Amino acid sequence: MEILESCISANNKKIILIVVDGLGGLPKNGKTELETANTPNLDKLAKKSSLGLTIPVDVGITPGSGPAHLALFGYDPIKNQIGRGVLEAVGVGLEIGPDDLCVRANFATIDKNGIITDRRAGRISTSENEQICRSLSAEIKSIDNVEIIIRPGKGHRFVVVFRSKNLSQDLTDSDPQKENRKPLKITPITSDATRSAKIVNLFLEQVNNILRYERPANYILLRGFAHNPNLTPMSELYKIKPAAIATYPMYKGIARLVGMDILDCAENWESEIETVSKNFSSYNFFYLHFKEVDMMGEDGNFDGKVKLIEKFDSLLPEILKLKFDALAITSDHSTPAVLKGHSWHPNPFLLYSPYAHTDGVETFSEKSCANGSLGLFPQIKVMQLLLANSLKLKKYGA
Amino acid sequence: MEILESCISANNKKIILIVVDGLGGLPKNGKTELETANTPNLDKLAKKSSLGLTIPVDVGITPGSGPAHLALFGYDPIKNQIGRGVLEAVGVGLEIGPDDLCVRANFATIDKNGIITDRRAGRISTSENEQICRSLSAEIKSIDNVEIIIRPGKGHRFVVVFRSKNLSQDLTDSDPQKENRKPLKITPITSDATRSAKIVNLFLEQVNNILRYERPANYILLRGFAHNPNLTPMSELYKIKPAAIATYPMYKGIARLVGMDILDCAENWESEIETVSKNFSSYNFFYLHFKEVDMMGEDGNFDGKVKLIEKFDSLLPEILKLKFDALAITSDHSTPAVLKGHSWHPNPFLLYSPYAHTDGVETFSEKSCANGSLGLFPQIKVMQLLLANSLKLKKYGA
Repeated sequence: MEILESCISANNKKIILIVVDGLGGLPKNGKTELETANTPNLDKLAKKSSLGLTIPVDVGITPGSGPAHLALFGYDPIKNQIGRGVLEAVGVGLEIGPDDLCVRANFATIDKNGIITDRRAGRISTSENEQICRSLSAEIKSIDNVEIIIRPGKGHRFVVVFRSKNLSQDLTDSDPQKENRKPLKITPITSDATRSAKIVNLFLEQVNNILRYERPANYILLRGFAHNPNLTPMSELYKIKPAAIATYPMYKGIARLVGMDILDCAENWESEIETVSKNFSSYNFFYLHFKEVDMMGEDGNFDGKVKLIEKFDSLLPEILKLKFDALAITSDHSTPAVLKGHSWHPNPFLLYSPYAHTDGVETFSEKSCANGSLGLFPQIKVMQLLLANSLKLKKYGA
Repeated sequence: MEILESCISANNKKIILIVVDGLGGLPKNGKTELETANTPNLDKLAKKSSLGLTIPVDVGITPGSGPAHLALFGYDPIKNQIGRGVLEAVGVGLEIGPDDLCVRANFATIDKNGIITDRRAGRISTSENEQICRSLSAEIKSIDNVEIIIRPGKGHRFVVVFRSKNLSQDLTDSDPQKENRKPLKITPITSDATRSAKIVNLFLEQVNNILRYERPANYILLRGFAHNPNLTPMSELYKIKPAAIATYPMYKGIARLVGMDILDCAENWESEIETVSKNFSSYNFFYLHFKEVDMMGEDGNFDGKVKLIEKFDSLLPEILKLKFDALAITSDHSTPAVLKGHSWHPNPFLLYSPYAHTDGVETFSEKSCANGSLGLFPQIKVMQLLLANSLKLKKYGA
């Protein structure tokens, strides 16, 4: 990072980082999803590109979306952790301020003895959730000069943000994670967190008093307190003007945490690409995120993942038309359908720029990437590679 | 390591780490030992496996067996050093306690002026060595409440263990490493070692007094004081139940230092494999060590090494029958016959698991491993990879 700082030299060459979420896979009947998919446009581009594999966090480590994206954006995913509460908050579309303390919340049911009988309040509907959050928001605006922001999520889940200077995330959860237990008292883990614990406990008291006649959502449980990680914005680190195009709140949220502008677009891939096109002249770094491939992997739907990779391939020419100076196609992490979840396998990585070697491969696949000239490299180096290929890095040393 | 700790999730899937000591080599007449050997079983397995090369300690660094094995077991071989004295002690089959201070010892010959005329006492026989050690042990049980353990090695070499709390390894050697000199006085390097120096010098005085009429072994020389490194056991680090199957004391000893159970077996490869088989249900991690390949390399016996690799190949199906969930075949270090010793060359590495990519190679060799999808990676990451492939690692971050 220090080297990078001394080498950065702004220009208006355009970079695009295309993230096909969960792209990498594992073979079923001898071929991975990417190998099975018919991808003439990707293959044609691969012939003219440098290929490699990126390790998101470390050998064998399966990353969540948070650390995997941090690494892609050039932030050390070990030193910079985005806490659960913050991820949940950005996931519901909240803009997190620098002093915000965020926490995940569940509506729950307790019996007359104060025992939790249902940690999810019978999985109440999102509309019921929204209605309760509205009334809580109306009744509780602040506690002891700490602004309280309550925002509904899906089903029984919502988010609470405590906005005030000097709040600490060093707090225990109130959610015991199991039923037939009493909720836990929030306690400070460090002495810095004493005031925060007091405020959160007062908040819980007020909420649970308001909810006491509600059924089934007569209680709330909190877990995963997390402070804004206050990352240095990409604009400052890399002297670029970055924009994010994504349809899911969590990815917009992570992009916002690293200081990208979030561009409005409809919830489909065509609209995402149109949005890049419309804003081409206003930014010189684009993070373009395609989510649904990952969801097919999570569902174990091998064929569905293949189809979506083919759809991405069919849309690729629209992106290439824009003639970016440096273009990468990769993923945050692999999501093999056979594992029905994220995995530790390195991400296929394709780099296309006038200054990238051509590896002379015939296809874009895990195998061709394993044989690529970029080798197997840490995901955290992706930004450096893109900056170099758009000639934004001066010589280091004389 | 901290990431690993937060991701570890125990299960009973079975891992085997097969170490063919000194496997990697260099070409003679254009082919390495591994390339020359006829290895149909290894080749067949390689077709279905992920290949790579591991760097034991660092580029260009030739490791001893200690650091090379530490790296294989996931311990940083630079931060965690097993001192010479400890290696020697485990090499003669001693179980090292947490407070033990170990040192290598030589029987030597000095003349009437106290000048060393032979640092190896004419390379006395092992049986003579054993006899002298027996009588020293009978005469010296403890000094100043420090228990003294004397154990013969081969020829003129033996080991002394000083067992007591608060002993320090910061001591100079008494062995001047050259003949025609006087033995050196043991001196403390740090102030913590003052008591240890006093005890060791008292011990030397007593021993040399007892030996004064012996010929040729009328003196002893000490070098390489080392304390038990007290490594965190693998069971704690990885939440596995580990067992070691090896025939040479040093490898059993290193395995014991990282907390493995040492399984009894006869001194041949067939018995080693039988031992794995018999204990299959009692452990979920097996370290299986085959020594003799390395010895052929050390002897510069290219053809002998080839033959032993072929023997290993012929036994491989017996291991594969057991159907491990994750299986690795590699080495601690390379021992090219043309170098007659350990070398810095990375180790061929093969990983077979349902979740490992297949690299589609035709053979198992240094070359195919250099082209493998696992790339060139640090040996210290081997355990992470095996844990991931046996699904023992949860997602890192959300």
